Amino acid sequence: MFRNTMPRYEVLSQDAMAKLDVAWRRLMTEVGVEFMSDRALDLFRAAGQRVEENTVFLDPEFVLEQVAKAPREFDVAARNADNSVHIGGDAMAFGAVYGPPFVRQGDVRRDATMEDFRSFTKLAQSFPVLDSAGGVICEPNDTPLDSRHLDMTFALQTLTDKIYMGNVVSGVNARDTIEMGAIMFGGRDVIEQTPVSISLINCNSPLRWDDRMLDAQFEYSAANQPVVLTPFILMGAMSPVTIPAALVQQIVEALSGITLSQLIRPGCPVIFGSFLSNIDMQSGSPTFGTPESATGLLCTGQIARHFGLPFRSGGALTSSQVADAQAGYEALMTMLPTFLAGTNWVMHSAGWLEGGLVAGYEKFIVDIELVRMMREQFRPLEIDDDSLAFGAHVEVGHGGHFLGASHTMERFRTCFYRPLLSSSENYERWMRNGGVDANGRAERIYRKTLEEYVQPPLDDAIREELAEYVTRRRRELGD
Amino acid sequence: MFRNTMPRYEVLSQDAMAKLDVAWRRLMTEVGVEFMSDRALDLFRAAGQRVEENTVFLDPEFVLEQVAKAPREFDVAARNADNSVHIGGDAMAFGAVYGPPFVRQGDVRRDATMEDFRSFTKLAQSFPVLDSAGGVICEPNDTPLDSRHLDMTFALQTLTDKIYMGNVVSGVNARDTIEMGAIMFGGRDVIEQTPVSISLINCNSPLRWDDRMLDAQFEYSAANQPVVLTPFILMGAMSPVTIPAALVQQIVEALSGITLSQLIRPGCPVIFGSFLSNIDMQSGSPTFGTPESATGLLCTGQIARHFGLPFRSGGALTSSQVADAQAGYEALMTMLPTFLAGTNWVMHSAGWLEGGLVAGYEKFIVDIELVRMMREQFRPLEIDDDSLAFGAHVEVGHGGHFLGASHTMERFRTCFYRPLLSSSENYERWMRNGGVDANGRAERIYRKTLEEYVQPPLDDAIREELAEYVTRRRRELGD
Repeated sequence: MFRNTMPRYEVLSQDAMAKLDVAWRRLMTEVGVEFMSDRALDLFRAAGQRVEENTVFLDPEFVLEQVAKAPREFDVAARNADNSVHIGGDAMAFGAVYGPPFVRQGDVRRDATMEDFRSFTKLAQSFPVLDSAGGVICEPNDTPLDSRHLDMTFALQTLTDKIYMGNVVSGVNARDTIEMGAIMFGGRDVIEQTPVSISLINCNSPLRWDDRMLDAQFEYSAANQPVVLTPFILMGAMSPVTIPAALVQQIVEALSGITLSQLIRPGCPVIFGSFLSNIDMQSGSPTFGTPESATGLLCTGQIARHFGLPFRSGGALTSSQVADAQAGYEALMTMLPTFLAGTNWVMHSAGWLEGGLVAGYEKFIVDIELVRMMREQFRPLEIDDDSLAFGAHVEVGHGGHFLGASHTMERFRTCFYRPLLSSSENYERWMRNGGVDANGRAERIYRKTLEEYVQPPLDDAIREELAEYVTRRRRELGD
Repeated sequence: MFRNTMPRYEVLSQDAMAKLDVAWRRLMTEVGVEFMSDRALDLFRAAGQRVEENTVFLDPEFVLEQVAKAPREFDVAARNADNSVHIGGDAMAFGAVYGPPFVRQGDVRRDATMEDFRSFTKLAQSFPVLDSAGGVICEPNDTPLDSRHLDMTFALQTLTDKIYMGNVVSGVNARDTIEMGAIMFGGRDVIEQTPVSISLINCNSPLRWDDRMLDAQFEYSAANQPVVLTPFILMGAMSPVTIPAALVQQIVEALSGITLSQLIRPGCPVIFGSFLSNIDMQSGSPTFGTPESATGLLCTGQIARHFGLPFRSGGALTSSQVADAQAGYEALMTMLPTFLAGTNWVMHSAGWLEGGLVAGYEKFIVDIELVRMMREQFRPLEIDDDSLAFGAHVEVGHGGHFLGASHTMERFRTCFYRPLLSSSENYERWMRNGGVDANGRAERIYRKTLEEYVQPPLDDAIREELAEYVTRRRRELGD
């Protein structure tokens, strides 16, 4: 986990914030939000909110009261305490890509398998800059649909000792995830005390929460496990084409979902979610790493802080098919604003390719490099006599060089960022080493990392109990 | 030219600025700066500064008095008035890569030629986001050394109608550049009134200004042509390994050069220069697009504003050999801070490859895309009823889509950034189109751009006079 103590880059004026404030209240009140769940509608009705069919017309003041019950910051425990994370404040935590049905290895693009899921999970375990493998790091298409959440959760729990994300396909799946967390950590009361998973609840934007996601939300919030209430907005399709309109919609969606969580269990942890990009208006394709999404990200951070909520956004997004120059710059087009905004929970930090349809092995390594670089860049400068190095100037004088200066000799091992992937070899040396580009070097790195992977230790009794749970539940689910 | 009216991202506290202030005064006073030019030393001596051998120990208050004579902002005229630029304030102007002896086209890396120089100049003319082809866009190795500055200046003046950079190899070359400017614009008095070129005066860091560069500086400043006084710092070699020390050195070097220009001609235009990165301490290779250089860039902007000076920094720098993922993210690692810092004059904005040794044709296109994206991102949001689009929400309702909404239909052609290079094609379509990565697509774009290049019109009499000047001077120079 990283502490970002650098300044936030905020682009919305007070006047702009005030206009957004008026606008979300109006949208919340006059258009309202659909909840495709009777349980949710009953809760809103009981709390005195106007409900017509599936639409809830929320009173903004009521919403703000509920939002104020959510913790501004909270902890999520990993089974290795060194890997536990803090969510909120100046803390930033990073998870790998989430959701791709396909994988890419070099020139091969194919359906993802459980073996891929395990490989990516091992990669996530291997790089300290990732706090989590995430959840659906890729979709294991070769495992039975109804029970694959058990296999995925088991892999996340046993192949990593970091925090993991909960399955959200249904309430049943959510209960299984919670049960497995209780087994791992010593009981439901323990995980209700300090949560052990984070779960992604996506809005069916615009302004609709669907039943299966809501079922999962009910389970997680009741168990005090944090949920990320995420408007899923590709501007032009799921929102108007203008950024201010998308921001307003995002506030209404996120706050309405957060309000529901607070009605389920007051004080339960929530995260203001954002997944905000746009489509190509010619083709209708989603596009990532765009100027619009970067601006949206910066604004989202400012808005979430305004409401006193930790927020999720960003990642290493790209539309590119392969780990090429476009993938490099689009990923950083998202990751640099992710840091400028001080994003608390960063999904899709490594491996995202092709608009999220593909988990890329090489791209995973490119993105790890980006997160490493950003963590280095977002460290405050220490300005003191030591770093001002007047003596080194006296020692070296005019037109000399500092390679052998004592100030240099004392610091040369650690003074600068050491890249994982980037090459600064001169041409002759680079050619002697095969003239391999970043994509080719990334391949070498991920293969070597997988070879050297060491499974983190786990108590045999716990592993056995988890395995038994998976076996029993798979049978019960008929797979 | 671009107006960056977004907030600046400033990372130095007031306390940090105060410490840097104490430190540069001490370095200036106690270690001083070497000027390898008797003319320069005479000017400093005449102004009452302490001179010992070639070292000038400058009084900080005297320096600040001289610096205050420099204009905070100024114009540089292009022969097409639409392409004239403003330097300083919130204006940002962009020039192409400067200095590479080699070029890369796809897999081929070779010595640059005059034909390459012309091709890159044509590319720079073709993309509106570039304000200048720069100066030595690549080194035309197949032309005679003593007269190639004439060929380059002629190409810059005739193949583009944008501003250009002056040759700085010697005082003689500078005089030729000024003469050719006078021919183009109608006389020396005209260009002294509004300058027509910008010239790069590099420091031989640490703390030494060499004679040939100084000779050029004397010519340009006397002719009221702006010079960019640029500390050339790769931390670890030309400065201590710590960023604060490099910043202090940069202040001393830049301000000492600026002071000289003000002694040559009080009030002449200058630019606070910065070329700040670091070496790899294992190999000694220069590295670019590093976290340290990004931090240095942000600080430089803040420092230059503190002194009330326009500044130069940034670009699309990378150590990569080819236009791969590394080239993409390293270029943006520099270009995004370039905008965050509000850099006024941006050299190396397009084509930089392999630590500046190579001008890359494909990389040129990658970089044009980056500048286009940044210009889009650094536009303030307009928040009004129109962009808040309440009516669109009423029209679309819950769970619908905005593709056909009237708010969308009115804006779909211009609402989002339109990429030049980036692809968001879906996999099937991308494969049908040949499965070409960003490097391959960039090749198609630069070739098509060169095919479609149209030379900007120029008065025949002026062209003839320039050509005659080149012919005469080449003969006089013995080439």
